[in-house]
Amino acid sequence: MEKIIYQNQLIKVEIEPFEIPWLKIFTIDRIKEFSECSKKIQFEILEVLNIIEIEMLEYFKPTKVNIASFGNYVPHVHFHIQARFENDSFFPEPTWGKKQREAKLKLLDFDIFYLNIKLKLEKRSLSNG
Amino acid sequence: MEKIIYQNQLIKVEIEPFEIPWLKIFTIDRIKEFSECSKKIQFEILEVLNIIEIEMLEYFKPTKVNIASFGNYVPHVHFHIQARFENDSFFPEPTWGKKQREAKLKLLDFDIFYLNIKLKLEKRSLSNG
Repeated sequence: MEKIIYQNQLIKVEIEPFEIPWLKIFTIDRIKEFSECSKKIQFEILEVLNIIEIEMLEYFKPTKVNIASFGNYVPHVHFHIQARFENDSFFPEPTWGKKQREAKLKLLDFDIFYLNIKLKLEKRSLSNG
Repeated sequence: MEKIIYQNQLIKVEIEPFEIPWLKIFTIDRIKEFSECSKKIQFEILEVLNIIEIEMLEYFKPTKVNIASFGNYVPHVHFHIQARFENDSFFPEPTWGKKQREAKLKLLDFDIFYLNIKLKLEKRSLSNG
């Protein structure tokens, strides 16, 4: 599957390949801070974040969803959305924290999940005109 | 200064005492995931997050603002908002990551910043009726 699964005029959604399901929402414009985004872009991030999180919860039934926006290395607004599991390598620490164990994860197919997200976002674009 | 600097029917804002300016927005209701929050609560989090971030950028002029919502230890929706500086202990890693150095920070008074946020949020409550 391609890394960028969806893109419109405001945002794009990218896969972060890892042991857990992990998507990133980037603004198209190179904006540094979230509060510098227009309301339109902020609401778009919010809507796409909700779509991703709801599908994540339904499909993978994770222990918790994690959301983060740092941008210390890449000062371009992007949000991470991750499905976390109590037996993943870092739980309950963030994946940026100390590794806790060797993960033994048996998860459903990631590509089907990413494809579902892609289709949901494309369908929404169509119905939004 | 008290730890909880602001509270309304939807959210509360709490200080996380640390070497950098750090505030947390909690939902009042014990909701586990962000997508399980009502639109009203989500928009309230968004608005308060913007107010905090804008004030952080103006007052401290940080290198970057970091936003995160994990809840792996405490499964109750809360967002961290942090002002990050290139010479803080963890930069460019998240504060949940590996410590990089002993911080040498000379920052403006935190209490004045927290008081400004408190006043801005209280003023907004009044004008919202």
